[in-house]
Amino acid sequence: MQAELYDKVLVESNDVKYEGILMPSQTDSIVLKLKNGYNIGICKDSTSITLLEKKQETIDRGKVSQPGKKTNEKLPSISILSTGGTIASKIDYRTGAVTSQFSAQDILGAIPELEEIANYNCRMIYSILSENMRPSYWVELARAVYEEIMNGAQGIIITHGTDTMMYTAAALSFMIETPVPIVLVGSQRSADRPSSDNAMNAICAAIVATGDIAEVCVVMHGSTSDDFCSIHRGTKVRKMHTSKRDAFQSINARPIGRVEYPSREIKISTNYVKRGEKKLAIHDKLEPKCALIKYVTGASSESLLFHSGSGYKGIVIEGTGLGHVSTEWIPVLRTTTGAGIPVVITSQCINGRVCDRVYDTGRDMLKAGAIEGGDMLPEVALVKLMWSLGQASDIQKVKELMNSNIAGETTRSTLL
Amino acid sequence: MQAELYDKVLVESNDVKYEGILMPSQTDSIVLKLKNGYNIGICKDSTSITLLEKKQETIDRGKVSQPGKKTNEKLPSISILSTGGTIASKIDYRTGAVTSQFSAQDILGAIPELEEIANYNCRMIYSILSENMRPSYWVELARAVYEEIMNGAQGIIITHGTDTMMYTAAALSFMIETPVPIVLVGSQRSADRPSSDNAMNAICAAIVATGDIAEVCVVMHGSTSDDFCSIHRGTKVRKMHTSKRDAFQSINARPIGRVEYPSREIKISTNYVKRGEKKLAIHDKLEPKCALIKYVTGASSESLLFHSGSGYKGIVIEGTGLGHVSTEWIPVLRTTTGAGIPVVITSQCINGRVCDRVYDTGRDMLKAGAIEGGDMLPEVALVKLMWSLGQASDIQKVKELMNSNIAGETTRSTLL
Repeated sequence: MQAELYDKVLVESNDVKYEGILMPSQTDSIVLKLKNGYNIGICKDSTSITLLEKKQETIDRGKVSQPGKKTNEKLPSISILSTGGTIASKIDYRTGAVTSQFSAQDILGAIPELEEIANYNCRMIYSILSENMRPSYWVELARAVYEEIMNGAQGIIITHGTDTMMYTAAALSFMIETPVPIVLVGSQRSADRPSSDNAMNAICAAIVATGDIAEVCVVMHGSTSDDFCSIHRGTKVRKMHTSKRDAFQSINARPIGRVEYPSREIKISTNYVKRGEKKLAIHDKLEPKCALIKYVTGASSESLLFHSGSGYKGIVIEGTGLGHVSTEWIPVLRTTTGAGIPVVITSQCINGRVCDRVYDTGRDMLKAGAIEGGDMLPEVALVKLMWSLGQASDIQKVKELMNSNIAGETTRSTLL
Repeated sequence: MQAELYDKVLVESNDVKYEGILMPSQTDSIVLKLKNGYNIGICKDSTSITLLEKKQETIDRGKVSQPGKKTNEKLPSISILSTGGTIASKIDYRTGAVTSQFSAQDILGAIPELEEIANYNCRMIYSILSENMRPSYWVELARAVYEEIMNGAQGIIITHGTDTMMYTAAALSFMIETPVPIVLVGSQRSADRPSSDNAMNAICAAIVATGDIAEVCVVMHGSTSDDFCSIHRGTKVRKMHTSKRDAFQSINARPIGRVEYPSREIKISTNYVKRGEKKLAIHDKLEPKCALIKYVTGASSESLLFHSGSGYKGIVIEGTGLGHVSTEWIPVLRTTTGAGIPVVITSQCINGRVCDRVYDTGRDMLKAGAIEGGDMLPEVALVKLMWSLGQASDIQKVKELMNSNIAGETTRSTLL
């Protein structure tokens, strides 16, 4: 059998043997990915190539989850839903860039420690980079989570690109009431880099998925060392760094807890919903036509006017400070809310709580019908507005939902 | 002479004497603002009111700066330019909300410690809440700063609302080359609150304005205690909390230093431009018609299309992670740059540096003509784009300016 691209091969050249994955080459050399993650080029002259193992076929996206290889009856049953992202990515040798190509099954193969923690069913939901996520995908993902729990999964792990993980975590938090943990996990550094965080994050995610916290949460590195992962509530977490491994932070809240590493001990730091406390339910109707507009110095109100006149059903404004826009915007704000389009005010400060009762501008905004976003993150307020508009058509009911605490997204007093 | 509203008065009622400012009252009682900042209501029966001092007249906004009362020839000469904001605000008794009403001269009167540090010329440039700042005001402010330095000011203090202080600080950083310190200062809590930070911030600002750091900087509380103010570079600072006194943080950089309090000692932590190192110059042309668009999950490219078709001359995108948008946006991005409109990519992570060479999406964005914003804050990238378009009409030159370090806004390697 002839060795093909991505097959595992043995290359012998001048009495030296190299074992690795056969990679595409743009020169006459043979390019081999070694076990340590590095690539070498080997001159083609006087070499022989022996096929060791055919490449694994990608699992097709499907309705049926694929069981892992081994089954240990003492271990709980966890479903891994793969959506793509860096944790499931490798270098694309065509462009040199990272693309999302591995499946959930591949992750399991790459991180053998996972097999000690649980039995896994793997299901590929998508294979996308997370900037391409969209609200309709959240709904499909929520339904897949629901099905897996209905079918007996005792915990869910969702592998997800880090870019928009916070948006998906918030969406699932509003859409699903869960009796078991639903854990989103990703990786800031791709698996072929020595500094990759994918193994430790995945192991900690499995620990949380088999644990007692029955909430939607994000489990990612908590420090630049490999000493613990933080367990963030899905509605309170934000990616706060472009590249650091500890990029995820809980905002206006403490993390629910942490997983110590390598001891794998869970330490709790806040109240949480316990396993079995809630019954499984899904509320997956969304109104995706909502916009987030950030107010900056000099921003004209024509952007708000454009959105309110283009069929948008709800708008979140990321204002300055306690939640302000230029007073020029207020007449357009009034017209927008007057047309039955809810407008929610949040702050670009990210930390803290909006309060539109302190300054004249804020009071004028409230008079114009704006809804205060409390201490909600702007991105979470957007997701919640899409969800609220899916749950209620009456604007007063939408306003009540926005002012209620549905999934820990807002608190009466901000702790931090 | 009859006592009028806002006059300082002595009220005697049943042999008890109260000294304070006469405030508007909505009942039959007399409302008096006491020296400690609290208001009391006094029953009108059997009271006498004695006028102690007529209220100070607000200084008209004008071309000529007003000298402070005392002159000490040993002290340096500083100009205070007032623009409004909380440091110059008091409760509006009509609405109960805080409005911006005091002048620079009033600040000096309220904080007598300032007189030990310098001689002051005061000039009211505006009296606005800072959400109403606009690029044309930056230009007027830059010209006023330039005039004051030309007329011998050895340092500049600008009082400014905190909401958009970072935008103004960035704008002045690009517009002015300065041989003396230019210090923006504000207050998160209005002067009539016991927890007000206005006095300490103003004193630390005066220390920096009379010191050696000849840059545009922001001086604000560095901790929740009253123990030091941080000195932030004007292009690297961001308001990171809606209400805390230590809301301002340097991002992707260390602060230049700090002012210890109450010792008033300056401690330096990075390189800085020294007093007298640069010659005074102004480059105050701006192109205000620029937009900042934040990409969120589900955001349609029609917002970008709207801006590129509505006469906008430059666009900053606040993307996800390393600087991404949905691949659906890329054709619109290409059309926009193809029409000669520069598009700069920054990250909503705030911390870290964009890099569009790692993932497929980023590489496609670069091919579509996007300019990477490096480790610039999105808001600073917007201000810089307005400024760059004012300096150069050739798109290639604009791109070069955006990729250069003009005022410490971007560094080759991110420290933090």
